[in-house]
Amino acid sequence: MIYVVGLGPGSKEYILPKAVETLENSDMLVGFSRALESVNFINTERVAVKSLSDILKIVEENKSKKISIIASGDPCFYGVTDYIKRNIKEEPIEIIPGLSSFQYLMSKIGKSWNGKFLGSVHGREEDFLTVVKENSMCIFLTDSKNSPKVLANKLFIENISCNIWVGENLSYEDEKITVGTPEEIMEKEFSSLSVFVVEEV
Amino acid sequence: MIYVVGLGPGSKEYILPKAVETLENSDMLVGFSRALESVNFINTERVAVKSLSDILKIVEENKSKKISIIASGDPCFYGVTDYIKRNIKEEPIEIIPGLSSFQYLMSKIGKSWNGKFLGSVHGREEDFLTVVKENSMCIFLTDSKNSPKVLANKLFIENISCNIWVGENLSYEDEKITVGTPEEIMEKEFSSLSVFVVEEV
Repeated sequence: MIYVVGLGPGSKEYILPKAVETLENSDMLVGFSRALESVNFINTERVAVKSLSDILKIVEENKSKKISIIASGDPCFYGVTDYIKRNIKEEPIEIIPGLSSFQYLMSKIGKSWNGKFLGSVHGREEDFLTVVKENSMCIFLTDSKNSPKVLANKLFIENISCNIWVGENLSYEDEKITVGTPEEIMEKEFSSLSVFVVEEV
Repeated sequence: MIYVVGLGPGSKEYILPKAVETLENSDMLVGFSRALESVNFINTERVAVKSLSDILKIVEENKSKKISIIASGDPCFYGVTDYIKRNIKEEPIEIIPGLSSFQYLMSKIGKSWNGKFLGSVHGREEDFLTVVKENSMCIFLTDSKNSPKVLANKLFIENISCNIWVGENLSYEDEKITVGTPEEIMEKEFSSLSVFVVEEV
Protein backbone atom coordinates (compact mmCIF):
# COMPACT_ATOMS: atom_id res chain seq x y z
CA MET A 1 0.00 0.00 0.00
CA ILE A 2 1.28 3.42 -0.97
CA TYR A 3 0.29 6.67 0.71
CA VAL A 4 1.18 10.05 -0.71
CA VAL A 5 1.02 12.42 2.24
CA GLY A 6 0.87 16.21 2.04
CA LEU A 7 2.79 17.98 4.80
CA GLY A 8 1.54 21.53 4.22
CA PRO A 9 3.93 24.50 4.31
CA GLY A 10 6.26 22.77 6.76
CA SER A 11 5.69 23.45 10.42
CA LYS A 12 3.99 20.89 12.63
CA GLU A 13 1.06 23.22 13.40
CA TYR A 14 -0.01 23.05 9.76
CA ILE A 15 0.17 19.27 9.29
CA LEU A 16 -3.27 17.62 9.32
CA PRO A 17 -3.98 15.03 12.04
CA LYS A 18 -4.90 12.60 9.24
CA ALA A 19 -1.39 13.00 7.80
CA VAL A 20 0.28 12.41 11.17
CA GLU A 21 -1.86 9.32 11.78
CA THR A 22 -1.02 7.94 8.32
CA LEU A 23 2.73 8.47 8.84
CA GLU A 24 2.63 6.87 12.29
CA ASN A 25 0.85 3.80 10.91
CA SER A 26 3.23 3.35 7.97
CA ASP A 27 6.19 0.97 7.89
CA MET A 28 8.41 3.45 6.10
CA LEU A 29 8.57 7.14 5.16
CA VAL A 30 10.20 8.14 1.88
CA GLY A 31 10.95 11.67 0.76
CA PHE A 32 13.43 14.42 0.17
CA SER A 33 15.48 15.29 3.26
CA ARG A 34 13.85 18.72 3.56
CA ALA A 35 10.40 17.12 3.80
CA LEU A 36 11.61 14.41 6.19
CA GLU A 37 12.85 17.14 8.56
CA SER A 38 9.28 18.45 8.85
CA VAL A 39 8.21 15.16 10.42
CA ASN A 40 11.14 14.45 12.70
CA PHE A 41 8.63 14.10 15.56
CA ILE A 42 7.42 10.83 13.99
CA ASN A 43 9.33 7.66 14.80
CA THR A 44 8.63 5.64 11.67
CA GLU A 45 11.66 4.33 9.73
CA ARG A 46 12.68 6.82 7.06
CA VAL A 47 14.58 6.82 3.79
CA ALA A 48 15.83 10.05 2.22
CA VAL A 49 15.90 10.19 -1.57
CA LYS A 50 17.56 12.56 -4.01
CA SER A 51 15.27 12.09 -7.01
CA LEU A 52 11.73 11.04 -7.82
CA SER A 53 13.00 7.88 -9.52
CA ASP A 54 14.66 6.87 -6.24
CA ILE A 55 11.17 6.79 -4.71
CA LEU A 56 10.09 4.24 -7.33
CA LYS A 57 13.10 2.05 -6.49
CA ILE A 58 12.30 2.11 -2.77
CA VAL A 59 8.68 1.19 -3.50
CA GLU A 60 9.80 -1.65 -5.81
CA GLU A 61 12.15 -3.04 -3.15
CA ASN A 62 9.58 -2.96 -0.35
CA LYS A 63 6.46 -4.36 -1.93
CA SER A 64 4.88 -5.84 1.17
CA LYS A 65 5.24 -2.65 3.22
CA LYS A 66 2.99 0.30 3.92
CA ILE A 67 5.04 3.15 2.45
CA SER A 68 4.26 6.83 2.91
CA ILE A 69 5.73 9.11 0.28
CA ILE A 70 5.88 12.51 1.91
CA ALA A 71 5.42 15.69 -0.05
CA SER A 72 5.47 19.35 0.89
CA GLY A 73 2.29 21.37 0.42
CA ASP A 74 -0.63 19.62 -1.26
CA PRO A 75 0.46 16.61 -3.36
CA CYS A 76 -2.32 17.46 -5.85
CA PHE A 77 -1.08 21.05 -6.42
CA TYR A 78 2.16 20.96 -8.43
CA GLY A 79 3.01 17.89 -6.37
CA VAL A 80 4.05 14.28 -6.86
CA THR A 81 0.55 12.84 -7.41
CA ASP A 82 0.71 12.63 -11.21
CA TYR A 83 4.23 11.19 -11.23
CA ILE A 84 3.40 8.53 -8.65
CA LYS A 85 0.12 7.51 -10.29
CA ARG A 86 1.79 7.29 -13.71
CA ASN A 87 4.65 5.14 -12.47
CA ILE A 88 3.15 2.89 -9.81
CA LYS A 89 0.40 0.76 -11.28
CA GLU A 90 0.42 -2.46 -9.25
CA GLU A 91 -0.26 -1.07 -5.80
CA PRO A 92 -3.22 0.82 -4.39
CA ILE A 93 -2.43 4.50 -3.77
CA GLU A 94 -4.12 6.73 -1.24
CA ILE A 95 -3.47 10.46 -1.20
CA ILE A 96 -3.71 12.62 1.93
CA PRO A 97 -4.10 16.27 0.98
CA GLY A 98 -2.26 19.15 2.62
CA LEU A 99 -2.31 22.92 2.78
CA SER A 100 -0.34 24.52 -0.04
CA SER A 101 2.18 27.15 1.03
CA PHE A 102 0.36 29.72 -1.12
CA GLN A 103 -2.81 29.20 0.97
CA TYR A 104 -0.75 29.94 4.06
CA LEU A 105 0.64 33.15 2.53
CA MET A 106 -2.78 34.36 1.35
CA SER A 107 -4.20 33.89 4.85
CA LYS A 108 -1.26 35.85 6.32
CA ILE A 109 -1.79 38.79 3.95
CA GLY A 110 -5.58 38.49 4.35
CA LYS A 111 -6.51 38.10 0.70
CA SER A 112 -8.85 35.64 -0.98
CA TRP A 113 -7.50 33.46 -3.77
CA ASN A 114 -10.71 32.41 -5.51
CA GLY A 115 -10.76 33.68 -9.08
CA LYS A 116 -7.04 34.45 -8.96
CA PHE A 117 -4.42 33.00 -11.30
CA LEU A 118 -2.53 30.14 -9.66
CA GLY A 119 0.67 28.99 -11.29
CA SER A 120 4.13 27.67 -10.80
CA VAL A 121 7.34 28.76 -12.43
CA HIS A 122 9.01 25.84 -10.67
CA GLY A 123 10.57 23.89 -13.52
CA ARG A 124 7.92 25.05 -15.95
CA GLU A 125 7.85 27.57 -18.79
CA GLU A 126 4.78 29.65 -18.05
CA ASP A 127 4.22 32.86 -19.86
CA PHE A 128 4.67 34.92 -16.75
CA LEU A 129 4.16 38.40 -18.18
CA THR A 130 1.10 37.44 -20.21
CA VAL A 131 -0.76 36.03 -17.21
CA VAL A 132 0.21 38.98 -15.01
CA LYS A 133 -1.21 41.38 -17.60
CA GLU A 134 -4.43 39.37 -17.94
CA ASN A 135 -5.18 38.84 -14.23
CA SER A 136 -5.72 41.29 -11.38
CA MET A 137 -3.89 38.96 -9.01
CA CYS A 138 -1.46 36.12 -9.71
CA ILE A 139 0.08 33.65 -7.30
CA PHE A 140 3.22 31.70 -8.27
CA LEU A 141 5.46 29.09 -6.70
CA THR A 142 8.99 30.12 -7.70
CA ASP A 143 12.23 28.23 -8.39
CA SER A 144 15.92 29.07 -8.66
CA LYS A 145 15.72 29.94 -12.37
CA ASN A 146 12.68 32.15 -11.91
CA SER A 147 13.40 33.57 -8.48
CA PRO A 148 11.42 36.48 -6.97
CA LYS A 149 14.27 38.79 -8.01
CA VAL A 150 14.13 37.62 -11.63
CA LEU A 151 10.33 37.86 -11.76
CA ALA A 152 10.29 41.34 -10.18
CA ASN A 153 12.89 42.47 -12.71
CA LYS A 154 10.63 41.29 -15.57
CA LEU A 155 7.76 43.33 -14.10
CA PHE A 156 10.00 46.39 -13.67
CA ILE A 157 11.28 46.27 -17.27
CA GLU A 158 7.70 46.08 -18.55
CA ASN A 159 6.74 48.98 -16.26
CA ILE A 160 3.83 47.01 -14.74
CA SER A 161 2.20 48.88 -11.87
CA CYS A 162 1.72 46.35 -9.07
CA ASN A 163 2.40 45.29 -5.54
CA ILE A 164 4.39 42.16 -4.83
CA TRP A 165 4.41 39.91 -1.78
CA VAL A 166 7.15 37.32 -1.35
CA GLY A 167 6.76 34.60 1.28
CA GLU A 168 9.84 32.66 2.40
CA ASN A 169 10.18 29.80 4.92
CA LEU A 170 6.44 30.06 5.45
CA SER A 171 5.11 28.71 8.76
CA TYR A 172 8.65 28.29 10.16
CA GLU A 173 10.23 30.45 12.84
CA ASP A 174 12.36 32.24 10.27
CA GLU A 175 9.34 32.98 8.07
CA LYS A 176 9.68 36.23 6.15
CA ILE A 177 7.01 38.05 4.17
CA THR A 178 8.23 41.01 2.11
CA VAL A 179 6.00 43.48 0.31
CA GLY A 180 7.12 46.01 -2.28
CA THR A 181 7.05 47.35 -5.79
CA PRO A 182 8.91 45.53 -8.60
CA GLU A 183 11.79 48.02 -8.22
CA GLU A 184 12.06 47.32 -4.49
CA ILE A 185 11.77 43.53 -4.80
CA MET A 186 14.28 43.19 -7.67
CA GLU A 187 17.00 44.65 -5.43
CA LYS A 188 16.59 41.99 -2.74
CA GLU A 189 17.71 38.40 -2.37
CA PHE A 190 15.14 35.70 -1.58
CA SER A 191 14.99 31.97 -1.13
CA SER A 192 14.39 30.51 -4.58
CA LEU A 193 11.54 28.31 -3.29
CA SER A 194 9.16 31.12 -2.42
CA VAL A 195 5.57 32.10 -2.97
CA PHE A 196 5.27 35.20 -5.17
CA VAL A 197 2.04 37.21 -5.33
CA VAL A 198 1.45 40.05 -7.81
CA GLU A 199 -1.53 42.37 -7.49
CA GLU A 200 -2.21 45.15 -9.96
CA VAL A 201 -2.62 48.65 -8.49
CA MET B 1 -8.77 40.53 18.39
CA ILE B 2 -10.58 38.67 15.63
CA TYR B 3 -9.55 35.31 14.24
CA VAL B 4 -11.09 33.85 11.13
CA VAL B 5 -10.45 30.13 11.40
CA GLY B 6 -10.75 27.61 8.56
CA LEU B 7 -12.10 24.23 9.60
CA GLY B 8 -11.41 22.27 6.42
CA PRO B 9 -14.00 19.88 4.95
CA GLY B 10 -15.47 19.13 8.38
CA SER B 11 -14.10 16.13 10.20
CA LYS B 12 -11.65 16.54 13.06
CA GLU B 13 -8.88 14.66 11.23
CA TYR B 14 -8.73 17.47 8.66
CA ILE B 15 -8.62 20.43 11.05
CA LEU B 16 -5.13 21.92 11.41
CA PRO B 17 -3.51 21.89 14.86
CA LYS B 18 -3.06 25.66 14.49
CA ALA B 19 -6.84 26.05 14.10
CA VAL B 20 -7.58 23.91 17.18
CA GLU B 21 -5.04 25.87 19.23
CA THR B 22 -6.56 29.18 18.12
CA LEU B 23 -10.09 28.07 18.99
CA GLU B 24 -8.99 26.77 22.38
CA ASN B 25 -7.31 30.09 23.18
CA SER B 26 -10.28 32.21 22.13
CA ASP B 27 -12.92 33.65 24.46
CA MET B 28 -15.74 32.93 22.07
CA LEU B 29 -16.49 30.98 18.88
CA VAL B 30 -18.96 32.43 16.38
CA GLY B 31 -20.33 30.67 13.32
CA PHE B 32 -23.14 28.88 11.59
CA SER B 33 -24.44 25.89 13.54
CA ARG B 34 -23.16 23.43 10.94
CA ALA B 35 -19.61 24.76 11.38
CA LEU B 36 -19.93 24.84 15.18
CA GLU B 37 -20.82 21.13 15.14
CA SER B 38 -17.44 20.38 13.55
CA VAL B 39 -15.68 21.70 16.65
CA ASN B 40 -17.89 20.27 19.38
CA PHE B 41 -14.74 18.76 20.93
CA ILE B 42 -13.61 22.28 21.89
CA ASN B 43 -14.93 23.75 25.13
CA THR B 44 -14.83 27.45 24.29
CA GLU B 45 -18.09 29.42 24.66
CA ARG B 46 -19.98 29.43 21.36
CA VAL B 47 -22.60 31.56 19.64
CA ALA B 48 -24.52 30.27 16.63
CA VAL B 49 -25.51 32.83 14.01
CA LYS B 50 -27.96 32.72 11.12
CA SER B 51 -26.44 35.40 8.90
CA LEU B 52 -23.11 37.08 8.22
CA SER B 53 -24.41 40.37 9.63
CA ASP B 54 -25.12 38.58 12.94
CA ILE B 55 -21.38 37.93 13.17
CA LEU B 56 -20.70 41.67 12.95
CA LYS B 57 -23.18 42.31 15.80
CA ILE B 58 -21.51 39.73 18.03
CA VAL B 59 -18.11 41.27 17.31
CA GLU B 60 -19.46 44.77 18.05
CA GLU B 61 -20.96 43.63 21.37
CA ASN B 62 -17.79 41.86 22.55
CA LYS B 63 -15.01 44.28 21.74
CA SER B 64 -12.59 43.28 24.48
CA LYS B 65 -12.78 39.58 23.67
CA LYS B 66 -10.73 37.25 21.51
CA ILE B 67 -13.33 36.07 19.03
CA SER B 68 -12.85 33.24 16.55
CA ILE B 69 -15.14 33.34 13.54
CA ILE B 70 -15.23 29.79 12.29
CA ALA B 71 -15.59 28.99 8.61
CA SER B 72 -15.78 25.74 6.68
CA GLY B 73 -13.04 24.99 4.17
CA ASP B 74 -10.45 27.69 3.58
CA PRO B 75 -11.70 31.19 4.56
CA CYS B 76 -9.72 32.62 1.62
CA PHE B 77 -11.41 30.39 -0.98
CA TYR B 78 -15.02 31.53 -1.47
CA GLY B 79 -15.04 32.14 2.26
CA VAL B 80 -15.78 34.92 4.73
CA THR B 81 -12.39 36.67 4.52
CA ASP B 82 -13.44 39.49 2.18
CA TYR B 83 -16.71 40.15 4.04
CA ILE B 84 -15.01 40.28 7.43
CA LYS B 85 -12.14 42.49 6.25
CA ARG B 86 -14.55 44.89 4.53
CA ASN B 87 -16.80 45.22 7.57
CA ILE B 88 -14.48 45.08 10.56
CA LYS B 89 -11.96 47.89 10.42
CA GLU B 90 -11.17 48.73 14.04
CA GLU B 91 -9.81 45.40 15.21
CA PRO B 92 -6.79 43.37 14.11
CA ILE B 93 -7.79 40.28 12.11
CA GLU B 94 -5.76 37.10 11.82
CA ILE B 95 -6.75 34.38 9.38
CA ILE B 96 -5.99 30.70 9.90
CA PRO B 97 -6.21 28.83 6.60
CA GLY B 98 -7.88 25.46 6.10
CA LEU B 99 -8.18 22.70 3.55
CA SER B 100 -10.93 23.37 1.01
CA SER B 101 -13.38 20.50 0.48
CA PHE B 102 -12.41 20.41 -3.19
CA GLN B 103 -8.80 19.62 -2.20
CA TYR B 104 -10.10 16.71 -0.17
CA LEU B 105 -12.14 15.39 -3.11
CA MET B 106 -9.26 15.72 -5.56
CA SER B 107 -6.98 13.73 -3.26
CA LYS B 108 -9.67 11.03 -2.95
CA ILE B 109 -10.03 10.69 -6.71
CA GLY B 110 -6.26 11.00 -7.16
CA LYS B 111 -6.20 13.94 -9.55
CA SER B 112 -4.09 17.08 -9.50
CA TRP B 113 -5.84 20.45 -9.50
CA ASN B 114 -3.06 22.74 -10.70
CA GLY B 115 -4.01 24.37 -13.99
CA LYS B 116 -7.66 23.37 -13.56
CA PHE B 117 -10.60 25.76 -13.47
CA LEU B 118 -11.72 26.42 -9.89
CA GLY B 119 -15.11 28.05 -9.38
CA SER B 120 -18.19 28.27 -7.27
CA VAL B 121 -21.79 28.34 -8.35
CA HIS B 122 -22.68 28.98 -4.71
CA GLY B 123 -24.68 32.20 -4.88
CA ARG B 124 -22.83 33.38 -7.94
CA GLU B 125 -23.66 33.63 -11.62
CA GLU B 126 -20.77 31.95 -13.35
CA ASP B 127 -21.00 31.02 -16.96
CA PHE B 128 -20.90 27.33 -16.21
CA LEU B 129 -21.11 25.92 -19.74
CA THR B 130 -18.56 28.35 -21.17
CA VAL B 131 -15.89 27.43 -18.62
CA VAL B 132 -16.59 23.71 -19.00
CA LYS B 133 -16.09 23.97 -22.76
CA GLU B 134 -12.87 25.97 -22.36
CA ASN B 135 -11.19 23.80 -19.71
CA SER B 136 -10.22 20.13 -19.66
CA MET B 137 -11.15 19.90 -16.00
CA CYS B 138 -13.38 22.15 -13.87
CA ILE B 139 -14.04 22.03 -10.14
CA PHE B 140 -17.10 23.75 -8.67
CA LEU B 141 -18.61 24.26 -5.24
CA THR B 142 -22.38 23.88 -5.76
CA ASP B 143 -25.46 25.37 -4.10
CA SER B 144 -29.18 24.58 -3.98
CA LYS B 145 -29.98 26.60 -7.10
CA ASN B 146 -27.16 25.05 -9.11
CA SER B 147 -27.17 21.55 -7.64
CA PRO B 148 -25.19 18.65 -9.15
CA LYS B 149 -28.43 17.46 -10.77
CA VAL B 150 -29.05 20.86 -12.41
CA LEU B 151 -25.44 21.17 -13.60
CA ALA B 152 -25.39 17.61 -14.99
CA ASN B 153 -28.62 18.33 -16.85
CA LYS B 154 -27.01 21.40 -18.47
CA LEU B 155 -24.10 19.24 -19.62
CA PHE B 156 -26.47 16.56 -20.94
CA ILE B 157 -28.57 19.03 -22.95
CA GLU B 158 -25.40 20.44 -24.54
CA ASN B 159 -24.22 16.89 -25.28
CA ILE B 160 -20.84 17.50 -23.61
CA SER B 161 -18.78 14.33 -23.40
CA CYS B 162 -17.37 14.19 -19.88
CA ASN B 163 -17.05 12.37 -16.60
CA ILE B 164 -18.47 13.87 -13.44
CA TRP B 165 -17.52 13.30 -9.82
CA VAL B 166 -19.78 14.53 -7.04
CA GLY B 167 -18.50 14.65 -3.47
CA GLU B 168 -21.01 14.90 -0.60
CA ASN B 169 -20.40 15.11 3.16
CA LEU B 170 -16.71 14.92 2.43
CA SER B 171 -14.49 13.67 5.26
CA TYR B 172 -17.51 12.63 7.36
CA GLU B 173 -18.60 9.04 8.01
CA ASP B 174 -21.48 9.40 5.54
CA GLU B 175 -19.17 10.73 2.82
CA LYS B 176 -20.30 9.76 -0.66
CA ILE B 177 -18.38 10.14 -3.92
CA THR B 178 -20.37 9.39 -7.07
CA VAL B 179 -18.91 9.16 -10.56
CA GLY B 180 -20.88 9.09 -13.78
CA THR B 181 -21.81 10.62 -17.11
CA PRO B 182 -24.10 13.70 -17.23
CA GLU B 183 -27.04 11.38 -18.03
CA GLU B 184 -26.32 9.22 -14.97
CA ILE B 185 -25.73 12.13 -12.59
CA MET B 186 -28.82 14.13 -13.66
CA GLU B 187 -31.05 11.25 -12.54
CA LYS B 188 -29.71 11.27 -8.97
CA GLU B 189 -30.33 13.42 -5.92
CA PHE B 190 -27.39 15.02 -4.12
CA SER B 191 -26.74 17.34 -1.22
CA SER B 192 -26.85 20.87 -2.63
CA LEU B 193 -23.55 21.78 -0.92
CA SER B 194 -21.34 19.43 -2.91
CA VAL B 195 -18.12 19.49 -4.84
CA PHE B 196 -18.68 18.90 -8.55
CA VAL B 197 -15.81 17.94 -10.85
CA VAL B 198 -16.14 17.76 -14.66
CA GLU B 199 -13.42 16.20 -16.79
CA GLU B 200 -13.66 16.05 -20.56
CA VAL B 201 -13.28 12.60 -22.14
